[in-house]
Amino acid sequence: MTQSFRLGVAGLGTVGAAVVRMIARRAEALAAATGREIRVTAVSSRDRTRDRGLDMAGVTWFDDPVALAGSGEVDCVVELIGGSEGAAKAVVEAAIAAGKHVVTANKALLARHGAALAKAAEERGVALAFEASAAGGIPVVKALREGLPGNAVSRVYGILNGTCNYILTRMELEGLTFEDCLKDAQALGYAEADPTFDIEGFDTAHKLAILTSLAFGTEIDADGVSVEGISAIQPLDLTMAKELGYRIKLLGVAQLSDGGVEQRVHPTMVPKSSSIAQVMGVTNAVTIDADAVGELTLIGPGAGGEATASAVVADIADVAARIVRPTFGRPTTRLRPASRVEMQRHEGGYYIRLTVHDRPGVAAGVATRMAERDISLESILQRRTESAASQDPRGRSGRPVPLVLITYAATEGTIRAALEAIAADGLLAEAPQLIRIERE
Amino acid sequence: MTQSFRLGVAGLGTVGAAVVRMIARRAEALAAATGREIRVTAVSSRDRTRDRGLDMAGVTWFDDPVALAGSGEVDCVVELIGGSEGAAKAVVEAAIAAGKHVVTANKALLARHGAALAKAAEERGVALAFEASAAGGIPVVKALREGLPGNAVSRVYGILNGTCNYILTRMELEGLTFEDCLKDAQALGYAEADPTFDIEGFDTAHKLAILTSLAFGTEIDADGVSVEGISAIQPLDLTMAKELGYRIKLLGVAQLSDGGVEQRVHPTMVPKSSSIAQVMGVTNAVTIDADAVGELTLIGPGAGGEATASAVVADIADVAARIVRPTFGRPTTRLRPASRVEMQRHEGGYYIRLTVHDRPGVAAGVATRMAERDISLESILQRRTESAASQDPRGRSGRPVPLVLITYAATEGTIRAALEAIAADGLLAEAPQLIRIERE
Repeated sequence: MTQSFRLGVAGLGTVGAAVVRMIARRAEALAAATGREIRVTAVSSRDRTRDRGLDMAGVTWFDDPVALAGSGEVDCVVELIGGSEGAAKAVVEAAIAAGKHVVTANKALLARHGAALAKAAEERGVALAFEASAAGGIPVVKALREGLPGNAVSRVYGILNGTCNYILTRMELEGLTFEDCLKDAQALGYAEADPTFDIEGFDTAHKLAILTSLAFGTEIDADGVSVEGISAIQPLDLTMAKELGYRIKLLGVAQLSDGGVEQRVHPTMVPKSSSIAQVMGVTNAVTIDADAVGELTLIGPGAGGEATASAVVADIADVAARIVRPTFGRPTTRLRPASRVEMQRHEGGYYIRLTVHDRPGVAAGVATRMAERDISLESILQRRTESAASQDPRGRSGRPVPLVLITYAATEGTIRAALEAIAADGLLAEAPQLIRIERE
Repeated sequence: MTQSFRLGVAGLGTVGAAVVRMIARRAEALAAATGREIRVTAVSSRDRTRDRGLDMAGVTWFDDPVALAGSGEVDCVVELIGGSEGAAKAVVEAAIAAGKHVVTANKALLARHGAALAKAAEERGVALAFEASAAGGIPVVKALREGLPGNAVSRVYGILNGTCNYILTRMELEGLTFEDCLKDAQALGYAEADPTFDIEGFDTAHKLAILTSLAFGTEIDADGVSVEGISAIQPLDLTMAKELGYRIKLLGVAQLSDGGVEQRVHPTMVPKSSSIAQVMGVTNAVTIDADAVGELTLIGPGAGGEATASAVVADIADVAARIVRPTFGRPTTRLRPASRVEMQRHEGGYYIRLTVHDRPGVAAGVATRMAERDISLESILQRRTESAASQDPRGRSGRPVPLVLITYAATEGTIRAALEAIAADGLLAEAPQLIRIERE
């Protein structure tokens, strides 16, 4: 057997510890698959005293992860520190500069500094592999980069954040409010103490930016993602979605449009019969629309120590087998510049929930403002509670009641202009709720 | 740019023609991804005169595909002739003997001669790639072989034949008989004139044998697959499935069990809420159960010229990028011998539809025979039509009526012994219908 492949693992949290255990547990299979023995020879973490239950015999400990990156005992640095700046960035840069391969699960780092790091890796002829950074345990990087080279991709979209999908699932199935579900998610460890990064869509946006680059061969452009989270979703929206044949999911969507690429993260109505609508709880899913395969959907775990380690180890095995692919699927000089399509130009169906004053002519007023802008309505639903109707049989109370519209395809700019006109008419008791519809 | 990568395409049917077109259409992207220009330099097919709408400038035509395989103008032979023997086998053997890489979509060839061909390819140091042979356009070979090396797989199962899934979907949604759906499938081109290979499960068995080898690192063993098709499924079974919370799918299942691997193809009851149950029409799907990722499901097109070409071209791109992996994921000497677990030892839940004589004590007699063998019943459903009940209010007509049992986990041997005893008791008016239940 040829020389063994030596790993330096920087970061021994849940994922790091799982990687170290997996490399040991799967030693025979990994050697058979790659033709080399794979060994962890060095590790680094903040807390040396913590017992992680790992066999550290023959493993060198580094207090400084950057020193690990430069160590002569390491062929490949596995960066599992996290965060787009600080130690994680320093380690990856140092590893590449020292001519070592890098495997990382760090989506923030890739999203922010992927272009520069890919260029550096390319110049040094080393791998910068990141399967775990896009959809945790789902091998979607492989699918996009290696599984579909014969295809022109037109759209990639997915449920990329388990916390949000868990919350939306419970809101739907149990009729709970967003706030109650978030509390439960925190208690169960599915959401952080500060959940902003997950629930406001930023985590999804980082992952989406990575998928976009792979799908369209474009430079990574995390700042070009339009981001909207799930905190404004109300139980009524889930009820209405169900009634109209949809489910609400937080999707990241990247789509060819007008010669550019739309990148957007927002709560989305998806047809209840679609594959993606079936994905419940913390599970993730990605659907790829491409000219030759049509539709391809991958469903699996988006997070968790073992699942993330699975993706990290797949990258390690590739590099151990001496497979070094261009980071984003093609040389950095052949990536096309990101060409943004702003949300105003997005075209699609919309769910619009207005809170209007209950009085004659309101629905007609709303419909007129839509018609003036050539927005066609697929459905219009006005429903008062029975008690309100019995108290006010003629519908002139002026009290706030919901009015839900489903539009056919229209641009976001047109929809927003119509809503502004409706607001200016004094018809609205509250700011409107607007949820985009994504068709299969 | 380095030397171009020259393809010889043997077989210009739907898939072959799609591959030739795709290589041309995606020339820029393929060159960017692989670092080399990829060109079709030679083709071979039975009928030279047919107009396939392909640009054949600079392409050498071979009447004899084996001559193509030996041509000095070819670096990689793409075998799309089909069939486990004859020309397809001869071409692949000749190509390997001549030191050329091989990409094939031929599941029958792999299932029957995969072991010998993999050994030959290994000895010559060439690739034998077959992504298209397992699930058409779904990149499941990559997922199993390259996406999950850190995982121990415990089960892989899937809908691997679009014809069968199309027929079952229509039977379920429209209440049609098997025969009517088959006729429609033939008229629409989803089923062959002689549909035996698809509907009796042999196509699924070939694909399953390939997945088994990749999932468990075992020698391919197509003869070890227990095969049962869908031709005996009746509309009543689909109605009962629905009522009991299941759908019926033709599944291929490979599962670790008793130290060996069960390989089985049969109509299967899957829980209606499972990912695989959502897969309707000609679409295929594969679910992988593995220790680190838990459950991973891939859904996509299992057949069709463009979708199959997509998988073929992914393999071509790998080989063009000089990536030569062991055929079945590890060197042939490190594949474990197939260790069969016979169906008699399969343990699982069963749907049993008996046709019994409508008279007192029948249900009790059946239940007793089950209880004698420690088979626990989850449900027992006896339902007569209303008209039968009104004509015969005391239930003593002796006419044949259905009696449906759902069992908890039991071995197939025990179930069959109980059914033999029930038959010997003279309780049955027809042979029993037995459908295995697969849990998530």
